[in-house]
Amino acid sequence: MKHTISVLVDNKPGVLARISGLFSARGFNITSLAVGETNDPTVSRMTIIVSAEDRILEQVQKQLHKLIDVISVSDLTKRDYFERELVLIKVNMARTTKQKLTKLLDKFSATILSSSKQGAVVEVVGDNKEISKVVKLLEAVGIKELVRTGRIAITS
Amino acid sequence: MKHTISVLVDNKPGVLARISGLFSARGFNITSLAVGETNDPTVSRMTIIVSAEDRILEQVQKQLHKLIDVISVSDLTKRDYFERELVLIKVNMARTTKQKLTKLLDKFSATILSSSKQGAVVEVVGDNKEISKVVKLLEAVGIKELVRTGRIAITS
Repeated sequence: MKHTISVLVDNKPGVLARISGLFSARGFNITSLAVGETNDPTVSRMTIIVSAEDRILEQVQKQLHKLIDVISVSDLTKRDYFERELVLIKVNMARTTKQKLTKLLDKFSATILSSSKQGAVVEVVGDNKEISKVVKLLEAVGIKELVRTGRIAITS
Repeated sequence: MKHTISVLVDNKPGVLARISGLFSARGFNITSLAVGETNDPTVSRMTIIVSAEDRILEQVQKQLHKLIDVISVSDLTKRDYFERELVLIKVNMARTTKQKLTKLLDKFSATILSSSKQGAVVEVVGDNKEISKVVKLLEAVGIKELVRTGRIAITS
């Protein structure tokens, strides 16, 4: 089962390495990871999406709690929360126009940041399903490059 | 100097731990890190913002290149690129209204995802300066929780 884990940590060198090491030692592949400072610059929040059985993940959460510099760990999976991701996509413009691209992205929270014959750069925000739909639509046009932030989540 | 490093890696367990370990072994604190799959699910892209002298960072780049599972490393700092970040902010609504909040966020790429007496959840996308401005404005209202994705970048 996929879990969305939110970890509050001290913003210090080595914390990320210890936490990602803990997951990889268990052979977990992290589907998505995002780390950023909170409004307190001495504290960062990591949002980790990982697939694991509930029982095994509980053990990992306990081990996370024991790590120095870990302030709190919460599994948002069973709570109400918003999950969002930002993606930047460079689109091949050889077979399309800016106008067509605008129309294609009409229903999504997407912005064309730049557009030239060399390619257009599109910014998209959404939940996992919306992002997947946009990527599928743009794959048909031609994707030259794609960068995702990884998902972040906040309780509603 | 702040560097924006974009690293293409095989999407396998342990890669993140090895890369973040390499940075922390040098005592570098990563300001921001984002990892997400590319349009090829076997390949992920990490965007790392790190402060370091040019000379030292070149050595780290060389060591990154040597790591198994690292496909390519590029320092975007000296190129033209878009840098963006997504932030979710839970705002205290005790001293404001949804209408006032909408007006306050008018000039930014911000969306109010939910709003009640308990608090409003706001989604903001922008470059580092824009995000800083929004955070400052909302701090005056009252921030209950803040989650950042970390910055991603794409060449323009």
